[in-house]
Amino acid sequence: MKALLVYSGGMDSTVMLHQYQKNIVLAINFQYGSKHNFAELNCARENCYKLGIPLMIQELEFGLFKSDLLKTGGEIPKGDYEADNMSKTIVPFRNGIMLSFAAGIAESNNCDTILIANHFGDHAIYPDCRAEFIKPMIKAIKNGTTNRVILSAPYTRHTKRQIALIGNRKEVDFAKTYSCYVGGAVHCGECATCVERKEALKGFDNTDYLT
Amino acid sequence: MKALLVYSGGMDSTVMLHQYQKNIVLAINFQYGSKHNFAELNCARENCYKLGIPLMIQELEFGLFKSDLLKTGGEIPKGDYEADNMSKTIVPFRNGIMLSFAAGIAESNNCDTILIANHFGDHAIYPDCRAEFIKPMIKAIKNGTTNRVILSAPYTRHTKRQIALIGNRKEVDFAKTYSCYVGGAVHCGECATCVERKEALKGFDNTDYLT
Repeated sequence: MKALLVYSGGMDSTVMLHQYQKNIVLAINFQYGSKHNFAELNCARENCYKLGIPLMIQELEFGLFKSDLLKTGGEIPKGDYEADNMSKTIVPFRNGIMLSFAAGIAESNNCDTILIANHFGDHAIYPDCRAEFIKPMIKAIKNGTTNRVILSAPYTRHTKRQIALIGNRKEVDFAKTYSCYVGGAVHCGECATCVERKEALKGFDNTDYLT
Repeated sequence: MKALLVYSGGMDSTVMLHQYQKNIVLAINFQYGSKHNFAELNCARENCYKLGIPLMIQELEFGLFKSDLLKTGGEIPKGDYEADNMSKTIVPFRNGIMLSFAAGIAESNNCDTILIANHFGDHAIYPDCRAEFIKPMIKAIKNGTTNRVILSAPYTRHTKRQIALIGNRKEVDFAKTYSCYVGGAVHCGECATCVERKEALKGFDNTDYLT
């Protein structure tokens, strides 16, 4: 397997980077104008450098998109993912866009597999994180590429806690991952991803994640 | 139906613009660094202006992609689509990327439908123009968007000649469409799209397409 990882620098994709490091020949970070893209990228750089995996950056121009996750949008709501207002943080079809770019880049760089770290906790709010989206996307990418690229999303039915446990076994340094939607120098601790992240990392030794 | 059209300014999508003009509320032109994007855009602008349909431009950064269709690639091969060397003009998963952006833009601008003018003649070379790609993509876009956006590709099983005949009935001015992959001020007449276009427009009155 010669895999390309869709790699944000967040907790989930960093665990995947470590778990599949032997198969990953290329990591792609997408910069699409979210409030937290840049903070994530610093972590992505550090982890890729440590593991010796090349990191490429793909810019996405999202000026025609409306979402509070973007710098052009409103404030990030506080509270957990179940709250209605979290739907404002949807970037419409973002995973579809990132996966489509990943498919094109995989073909251009002789990768046979795309790895993405969407997980079960995202499902309630984000339609493009659900198995019902991933399944047809697997087929569309396979049939739409000359080399029949495989899309693999092994965490689709994992909870964030399960991902954290894998990361702990793989000795991931969670302090070198960034998740906060607000995008400040330190995690805000109050937005949905911060709440979810704290919950997932509960009881771990290496939980110095607010720095 | 409130439709968004993926609109290059080429012959096929210009016929679609005219055929579905009552349903199209927004046309999106993608600029991805191909040799002919800019020449197409002039035609797209003219036709949208004539029909009073808003045109938005979506930039795509394709620096990580390899294809002779791009300005960063080699020369455009001459001859018909069946020739082996035409595979060098594939931009990997381009339709997947354009459709994914179209899905996100549709959601952001209250469109319920995406129209795309891929057709049967593209099938031999381009995997992301075939029904086997379009079908799962329809499902991925529906399941991956909050408003369950519909993807419609009504020309998937049409030949370019059939599209030309529709255009002729709709009084499309084919001189105001651009197809040539070389991207010069006038059609080269020798690349695969030029050959295919001449064949499709044979015998028409309004074939002043080389200007």
